[in-house]
Formats: sequence, structure tokens, C-alpha cells
Amino acid sequence: MLNRYTTKLNLFLFTLLFILYLCFGAYVFSFVEQPTEQMVINEMAKTRKDFLGKYPCVQEDDFESFIVTLLDANKHGVDARTNFTTVDNWSFAQSFFFAVTVVTTIGYGHVSPLSDTGRIICIIYAIIGVPMTLLLLTIIVRKLLILLNSTYIWFRVRFSSDTRSESKIRFVHLSIILIFSLIFLFIIPSIVFTYLEENWSFIDAFYFCFISLTTIGLGDIVAGDSPTQRNRLFYKICLTVYLLVGVTIMMLVVAMISLIPELRLIQFFLSEQEV
Amino acid sequence: MLNRYTTKLNLFLFTLLFILYLCFGAYVFSFVEQPTEQMVINEMAKTRKDFLGKYPCVQEDDFESFIVTLLDANKHGVDARTNFTTVDNWSFAQSFFFAVTVVTTIGYGHVSPLSDTGRIICIIYAIIGVPMTLLLLTIIVRKLLILLNSTYIWFRVRFSSDTRSESKIRFVHLSIILIFSLIFLFIIPSIVFTYLEENWSFIDAFYFCFISLTTIGLGDIVAGDSPTQRNRLFYKICLTVYLLVGVTIMMLVVAMISLIPELRLIQFFLSEQEV
Ligand SMILES: [K+]
Ligand SMILES: [K+]
Repeated sequence: MLNRYTTKLNLFLFTLLFILYLCFGAYVFSFVEQPTEQMVINEMAKTRKDFLGKYPCVQEDDFESFIVTLLDANKHGVDARTNFTTVDNWSFAQSFFFAVTVVTTIGYGHVSPLSDTGRIICIIYAIIGVPMTLLLLTIIVRKLLILLNSTYIWFRVRFSSDTRSESKIRFVHLSIILIFSLIFLFIIPSIVFTYLEENWSFIDAFYFCFISLTTIGLGDIVAGDSPTQRNRLFYKICLTVYLLVGVTIMMLVVAMISLIPELRLIQFFLSEQEV
Repeated sequence: MLNRYTTKLNLFLFTLLFILYLCFGAYVFSFVEQPTEQMVINEMAKTRKDFLGKYPCVQEDDFESFIVTLLDANKHGVDARTNFTTVDNWSFAQSFFFAVTVVTTIGYGHVSPLSDTGRIICIIYAIIGVPMTLLLLTIIVRKLLILLNSTYIWFRVRFSSDTRSESKIRFVHLSIILIFSLIFLFIIPSIVFTYLEENWSFIDAFYFCFISLTTIGLGDIVAGDSPTQRNRLFYKICLTVYLLVGVTIMMLVVAMISLIPELRLIQFFLSEQEV
């Protein structure tokens, strides 16, 4: 067991590492994204200039105020293209999907409440829904942990020998679970999404799965939102099941890793009195 | 302790309640948001029609393709208004803020990586950053729990008497912490944001604080993103500190509530063998 000063130093160093990691991230993202952004800006500026050049009759003020309305509508999830009336962001299927992304804290935000009433309802809905979901998933994770522990015991009985240490067997058991999770939660769904969504590459699909199941939910790309999507209700329900199962398994994997004695990193930061 | 069948029934009923809650949410959101959405759609359609009516010289095809480019650029965080070149989404300050929202799983997504390289880097960054943040915050929460427990013991010694039960004292202690959290994490920051952000009502600011600290992060409104924002770097750093402290306190409150014996709801779902 470490003494109080060592643990304090460790925590200080870890916090420092965390801040450095954030700065490093800021630098890398800035470096990688700035050129791409500049390209999009240039293209937009050119398109704008070309349009006004082709139509000198259009007054710049009118054009500007049209753009403002259009961007405002878009922020509210309304697309200004001619077919925009066909997309209904608050149909039952879409609202159901929205409710799921709120209670799981994924929160894509590609559609979000527009009115003050909607926002207040959203807050109240989350106050009840988020703890409820957390409790439900925690219970299921607890039950799955018991199940996995029994497979681990079977595994240990089956493969144990003098040459294999217990921690080695635990490592193999965990690796199998990780590989299974990777295949069934990320690889196979990514292939399915690549197939189902028009214009999605495998990287797009994998990125969507990863950003969703870590509950980051950037919402820059969301499955089932193509305006031409058929069977949207069915698609969104399948997606909901995928998200709920996926988030649960991710919680399970985190719980498993945090329970491994060899990986209990927290011990380096808590002194004897604090454990 | 409950027997196995009772716990199974409880879990089944709870799952059913969860599904009903999602359907209820879907119904309410659909009911509240559809009229507002229809209003935005109508307004957009009118603006579009008015513009084309005023300028009959503009060909619909050109107009359409202009809108598509504009919406595409907007999806990538590029605003098509004349002043759009002044906003730099991937400056160091903005990238730093992006990194923080990724590792805390808030993930507003109001800016998101545009290129495949950026997306792959984002995935790798999150694989390391999210567990690192989780570990750091868990350590801090553990230390704060010890601190709060000592205030609780002081509290109990100070106010304990034959007429007050232990659970009553614990309830008062928790209530004080909840009220303090509410004031310092939600009310005061909301007032500050209402003051600092143009066009934000108190409800907008409170909604932003709540959606952020629950890590839902819809990203429909984000502080410090007004194009005319002065001292953006300083603002974003303060915001980062607020988010990190806020998320930590929220984790602390959840941990405290889940540790209260009277509120250990999980016991209704785990049988004797499973505890
Ligand atoms: K989000
Ligand atoms: K999120």
C-alpha cells in the first residue's frame, strides 16, 4: 500500500498528464481539421460569389436574409431543399429515437426541442429517464457479470494447469470477451450500416458505431436519417435496440476491466486510510 | 432478501415500465414539437417562395444546388453568412474545447471532424481519453466522498439526539449537498450565461447547463460560440473548467445517492445468490 504523499504526487502527475493530453488533442485536431475546414470555407465562398455573379439582379441584403432564415431553420432540423416537407423529425418513430438518445445520454442533437416548452419537458424527462436507464442497465450488467463469472470459473477449471497462472487465464478470458464485443458491436453493425446507408463508407459506419456506443453522440452522422429512407419506424426501432444492447455491453466491459485486480489503477491514487 | 422469482418479476416489470416511459416520451415530444416544426417548415417554404417570386431571373436548379452546398458546408460547421470567415472552428481554443467534450462524452457535435483522418484520430483519441477521464474523475469522486463523509460524521455528532433518526440526518445532509449543487452548478452559471450570451434567456442557459452536465450534450445551443464573442480562448477555458468540475460533482451526487442504504433500489432486482 502506498503512503499518502506518494498517492498525492501520483494524482498530481496524472492530472498534469490529463491536461497535457487535452492540449495534445487540441493541437492535433487543430492541425488535421483546419485545412479541411479552409477547403469547405473556400468552396462555400466561391459558390456564393458564383451565384451572385450569375444573377446580378439579386440584392445582397435579400440574399443574406434568405441565408439567415435557411440556416436558422436548418439548426431546428428543417431542411430547405424542395423535398424538405417529406421529412418529419417529430413523427412517433423519430420522437421515440430522440427519447432513447436522451435517456442513454448519447444525445445526438441532430434533432432537438425547438420550443421553450419542449426544452423544459426535455429536462424533466431526463431527470427521471437518465437515472432510470442507469439503474436498469446497472442491474442487467450485474446479472451479466455473474453469468460471465461462471463462464470464467468453467474456463479456469478447463484450462488451469501448473504452467498457467490465474492472471494469464483471466487475461485470455477477457480478451475473448473483448474480441466478441468488437465483432458483434462494431464490425458486423458497421458492415450492415455500410450496406443500408447510401453514401456511408465503412469508416463512416464504424465512426458512427463508436461515437454512439461510447455515448459521445456527436450526431454529425446518424443512421436512418436519409430523406429517402424506407421503413423508417422499423429501422429506428432496430437502431434503438442496437444502441441499448451496445451501451449495456460497453458498461459490462468497463465493469469487467475495473474489477480485474491487476488493473485496479485506482490503488495508485488512494492511500491506506482512503481505501 | 427477496427470492429469485420475485426479483425476476420485478426486473420484468421495470423493463416494461422503461419501454412505456420511452413510448410516453415519444408521444409527448411528438405532440409538443410537431406544431413548432410545422411553423418553421411553413416559414422556410414562404421565405423560399418569396425569394424566388421577387427574383424570377433565378433558375430553380441553380438555386437548389446553392442550397445543397450551403447546407453541406453548414453541416461541417461552416456558416455561409458574409462574416463566416471570421469564425474559426478549429483554432486551438475551439479544438481544446472539442477534445474536452469528447473525453467527457458530452460530444456536442456543433463542430465535428470533417475528414476520414480526423474521424480515425477522434476514435483513437477517445479510446485513450475516455477511460483516462473516467479514471481521473472516479479518483476525485472517491476522495470527495471521504471528505463529505467526514462532514456527515461531524453533522451527526452535532445534531444527533434521541428524537432524530440516523436516516433523517442523512436525508438532511444529502439535501444540503443537493441544494448547494443546484445553486453552484445550475442557477449561478445560468445567470452568468444569460448575462454573457446574447439572445439567451434564462431557460436557454439552464437548458444548456443541464444538457451539458448530464453529458447528454445535444449541442443545439453551445456557450461561447457567438461569432462576435470576445476573448474566446479565455471563455472556452473557463467553460472547460466548469464542465469538468460540473461533471465530477454530478458523478459525486450519483455516487452518494447510490450509497444510501434506504435508496439501494438495486436490492429489489437481485436475489440472495446474486448480491
Ligand atoms: K452528444
Ligand atoms: K453525449
